[in-house]
Amino acid sequence: MRLLWLLSAAGANALSKPPASVGDKLHQVATPALLLDAAAFERNCETLRAAVALSGVRARPHMKAHKSGALARRQLELLDVHASGVCAQTVAELEAAIDAGIDDVLLTNEVVGADKVARVAAAAKTAAARGGRVGVLIDDFWGQAMPLNAALGDSVIDAYVEVDVGQRRCGVPPEEAAPLAMKIRGLKRLRFAGCHCYQGLLQHVADASERRDAVLGGVADAVREVRAALDAVGLLDGAIITGGGTGTLATDRDSGVFDEVQPGSFCIMDLQYGAIEHEIQFERALEVLTTVISRPTPDRAVVDAGSKAVDLVAGVPQVEGGRPYRSGGDEAGILDLSADDELALGAKLRLDPSHCDPCVNLHDHWVVHRGGVVEEVLAVDARGAGC
Amino acid sequence: MRLLWLLSAAGANALSKPPASVGDKLHQVATPALLLDAAAFERNCETLRAAVALSGVRARPHMKAHKSGALARRQLELLDVHASGVCAQTVAELEAAIDAGIDDVLLTNEVVGADKVARVAAAAKTAAARGGRVGVLIDDFWGQAMPLNAALGDSVIDAYVEVDVGQRRCGVPPEEAAPLAMKIRGLKRLRFAGCHCYQGLLQHVADASERRDAVLGGVADAVREVRAALDAVGLLDGAIITGGGTGTLATDRDSGVFDEVQPGSFCIMDLQYGAIEHEIQFERALEVLTTVISRPTPDRAVVDAGSKAVDLVAGVPQVEGGRPYRSGGDEAGILDLSADDELALGAKLRLDPSHCDPCVNLHDHWVVHRGGVVEEVLAVDARGAGC
Repeated sequence: MRLLWLLSAAGANALSKPPASVGDKLHQVATPALLLDAAAFERNCETLRAAVALSGVRARPHMKAHKSGALARRQLELLDVHASGVCAQTVAELEAAIDAGIDDVLLTNEVVGADKVARVAAAAKTAAARGGRVGVLIDDFWGQAMPLNAALGDSVIDAYVEVDVGQRRCGVPPEEAAPLAMKIRGLKRLRFAGCHCYQGLLQHVADASERRDAVLGGVADAVREVRAALDAVGLLDGAIITGGGTGTLATDRDSGVFDEVQPGSFCIMDLQYGAIEHEIQFERALEVLTTVISRPTPDRAVVDAGSKAVDLVAGVPQVEGGRPYRSGGDEAGILDLSADDELALGAKLRLDPSHCDPCVNLHDHWVVHRGGVVEEVLAVDARGAGC
Repeated sequence: MRLLWLLSAAGANALSKPPASVGDKLHQVATPALLLDAAAFERNCETLRAAVALSGVRARPHMKAHKSGALARRQLELLDVHASGVCAQTVAELEAAIDAGIDDVLLTNEVVGADKVARVAAAAKTAAARGGRVGVLIDDFWGQAMPLNAALGDSVIDAYVEVDVGQRRCGVPPEEAAPLAMKIRGLKRLRFAGCHCYQGLLQHVADASERRDAVLGGVADAVREVRAALDAVGLLDGAIITGGGTGTLATDRDSGVFDEVQPGSFCIMDLQYGAIEHEIQFERALEVLTTVISRPTPDRAVVDAGSKAVDLVAGVPQVEGGRPYRSGGDEAGILDLSADDELALGAKLRLDPSHCDPCVNLHDHWVVHRGGVVEEVLAVDARGAGC
């Protein structure tokens, strides 16, 4: 189906050339390139597996971090029975997961608009034909639940009520969760599956105990209220309460209110997460490879990774060798060098990006390496503006 | 060739679905989507044509703004004899221009690394076979000119010496331009074609007279020094001195030191350029279309355009109706609404992005409309991290 889009698209296609071939050493990789350390990625998945095993809580890793159907599938293999499925944040991520053969995908977003509703319905149908399931979030009965119900044909979709547990983005207040769930129950094609209770703003609180207190005080209280209200109307049994992220993982798991946790960044990490205190230690598996393309003065080098290769909203990347990076525009970064730095034109350097999700979104390919040898080149098949 | 990359790529491809079909009204377009007002784009090209006609200076519009081979070709048609060709900032942009049938492309960047050198050599060969030409920038003889010369085989490429005229990014100082040009002249496959003298930092200086003084005082003095030095060694005749941008366009044109100007943003514009004083008036042709996906409270709406659909480095977008936008993460924007705002769930809104180049880079397709009816859907075929 995706191939047809290409062939029918007006003009040339937007695919860039893969920056490496299997077996390449890193110095042979075309830059700027998105590097994934396969061993570190696997260790992070093992760490998550160990963290949730025996806890009674299952993991539903979030694709919004890595945006690759193939990596999502690998995560599920490594997490084994401790994973319930994956999360997607966009319809494209949902489709990439389905294309990768994943049978349990929760789109942690509201679905509005005829085009998106139709695509989600098609994905639900594909999953159902394989014995799987697709879930979506609902915070409005007439604007979201009804159009989706009408578009589903013979398929059924899992509907999770999104509850605002403090983020003040989408979601109904806790007291409206059970009433909305009851209304959803009246629809033929929507199966009330549980509640989505995510508080993204807490993920990067630096101090671990402050972060824990915010979850246990604010989020967990709200979720408990939701659980009690569902229980009171007979809807708690079988419902899944899902939420949480990499920053709050340990507390989410131990809070007693979640059935499922949704860490995303844990598998690749970034500078922002590297700067905060964690109860569970994950390691950085993501880097951006860049080349020195100009050495105009002894104290300056220009690299080919600008704001199109490393997202700068959350800050500049850290450069190998501690060299300070500043923006040189969309296609360039400027390194101010110390007097004795003999960094050569043509040299390749690794950058540690500040924020993994938007950085990954800038790239078309993951260059997956093991010990510096390229093992695979994967399409970032779920990247894009968000459609 | 690009199709082969797709078929040989591991995993699924990274192409997203086109958000519209020809004939759609804008309310039918899937969001988030990058909109191009065709008539405004054409008027901007007409304005540029009129601005350079009879000036003795030709325009070489820069693709880094719109990143589409098809739009680059349309610009050349509209500029007619007043354009010398187009500029590209990345190898992907160069290839998209060549794929679009453009025969004169200047890659305004240094080319370093075996992979990029080989791709540029291939593009030069293709252009030469059609009687055209490709140019690149050089600021290092051994690191850039020599490897390129060796890779070119039977082809010849235009080499422009990049001169640092105040930006402090790449480029040799003015006094080293002529000596480097002389060395390049000794290479068989590199034809010394001129000097690239770009000062990007001046483009957004708000006050027009301050901006003009900075060009006339700093940049033009440096360029005059370069011209005199080239003249002294007999290299000025036939050389093209190229540079400038949308912000400094009028002064670049009138300075008497440039043979060619390189505006990029002029054809689509953005909030940053909209906020400064211009001698030549261009209009905004770029918008991002978004959908209200959640109305959780009377004073809050959530739209499906986050930092993956509108680049936030240079500030938040302006929202139709003056509604304030704040970031809701990578996939969402939050609008704080006044008490009487009846903005409906499902409503579509236009956003004016702060900075066009990185915003365009987030999208796979241009939805080109005329008076609100989709006329074409073009691939943003030169987008990508910069490879």
